[in-house]
Amino acid sequence: MVSISPEITSVRTMSLLLIGAELLRGKITDANGPLVIEEARSAGVALREITMIDDDLLGIATSVRRMAADVDLLVTSGGVGPTHDDLTLPAVAQAFDEDLYEHPDLRDRISAYYASRPEQLSVWLRMARVPVSTRLVMDEGMLWPVYQVRNVYVLPGVPEIFRRQFVAASNRFHRSASDMQTLYVTLSEGEIAEHLEAVLASYPSVEIGSYPVFGRNTSFRTRITLEDADPPTLERALAALTTRLPPASIVRVTRGKAPLVEW
Amino acid sequence: MVSISPEITSVRTMSLLLIGAELLRGKITDANGPLVIEEARSAGVALREITMIDDDLLGIATSVRRMAADVDLLVTSGGVGPTHDDLTLPAVAQAFDEDLYEHPDLRDRISAYYASRPEQLSVWLRMARVPVSTRLVMDEGMLWPVYQVRNVYVLPGVPEIFRRQFVAASNRFHRSASDMQTLYVTLSEGEIAEHLEAVLASYPSVEIGSYPVFGRNTSFRTRITLEDADPPTLERALAALTTRLPPASIVRVTRGKAPLVEW
Repeated sequence: MVSISPEITSVRTMSLLLIGAELLRGKITDANGPLVIEEARSAGVALREITMIDDDLLGIATSVRRMAADVDLLVTSGGVGPTHDDLTLPAVAQAFDEDLYEHPDLRDRISAYYASRPEQLSVWLRMARVPVSTRLVMDEGMLWPVYQVRNVYVLPGVPEIFRRQFVAASNRFHRSASDMQTLYVTLSEGEIAEHLEAVLASYPSVEIGSYPVFGRNTSFRTRITLEDADPPTLERALAALTTRLPPASIVRVTRGKAPLVEW
Repeated sequence: MVSISPEITSVRTMSLLLIGAELLRGKITDANGPLVIEEARSAGVALREITMIDDDLLGIATSVRRMAADVDLLVTSGGVGPTHDDLTLPAVAQAFDEDLYEHPDLRDRISAYYASRPEQLSVWLRMARVPVSTRLVMDEGMLWPVYQVRNVYVLPGVPEIFRRQFVAASNRFHRSASDMQTLYVTLSEGEIAEHLEAVLASYPSVEIGSYPVFGRNTSFRTRITLEDADPPTLERALAALTTRLPPASIVRVTRGKAPLVEW
């Protein structure tokens, strides 16, 4: 006996599983990964992993089991629909060793929608066959319920639909994000490495990244980012770093979230 | 005793591991995944998985071990450099239970390059510490050797460098790609599902995908792709499908590789 999955109310860690041969074969450029990265960031949720795999029943089941075990919420994208390569719901059932059944609410919705086109009904009813622990999450702004199976949200891959469903579903667990400072310096990574380590030793909670630029004509050679959930700690770490660097090497410092940029 | 990894000459399956908190936190938009997708496609190599993870020693080691076991070649991107978050080489060593050592060729190259800046030498020499089975792959067009550890190519994440290194390294195993046909139809996925399945039943080698468009003003509702390595088989499958569909429902058919498009 499997009971209905409990509602997900608190999410601190999340991963994303992108399902679809079309993505790996380059027929379609993934748009859902960047959306989830941006949403996780503004929600203050730590995104642990994004994985893109083929439409393969066993492969999906294996990835779902592995990834769901590591995070509060696993989101899947793709493989939910009426065609032969839509395998995500059976794979999630297999991942958790559950049976599939025809969910009565979904059957009723689909039957009503296709009442005037009965020849299509059996095909679309595939979307009503779900793992037995499935909870249907329905909120304003959603076009169709999100399938929740244990700690997995199963979403369709079509970007317009994924975006609407994901944003509506993730509104349930938004948290505050960490603050960020970005330094642009004329130094190479080799020249700053010891300084970054010294700052990190004094401020272990601060997350520091360094990103060199090559082969482009920029005023800086390396971008350094500092992030922390506590603004005063972030300011002290920034001051510690800028004090260590030659003043002329600092091209500029920008506060707040940097926009998504190509390297 | 571990011997040097044998040269990789034939690659039919490949996966990509993208390493870096900056990608998952949205500080940088990944550019290396799309490049590998495009290159794998034109090389006729089956791309099995792309996974993006944090800079975490154990996490990288676990992913490398898991992913390398499934394919002919695993490519890693990122975490190779002189800073505190550059953990890929130690993680690959851990994945294969190997020790690290200072590679004499790399030590000599780095020492020569930084002869005039000895204060930076110790930092950059981190890039000479490699797993003991490491083979250095060096070809025209490469800026620095690619580290090959068993069936893993370890590449830096900076896109300009990754691109040069990956393209040079992958020239070694190019194969011919499969042919593709794309149909644009006015029908929904529900209306075409049975036809796709019938064609698939007759032509099991053909890879068929269907991609509906929603919420946009297009002349078609669904894009269908057919792919096969054998052109005559592809033509027969295409004819079988177009015969089954109402002629007026076919907006257009395009032959050859479709360009990378947003859905």
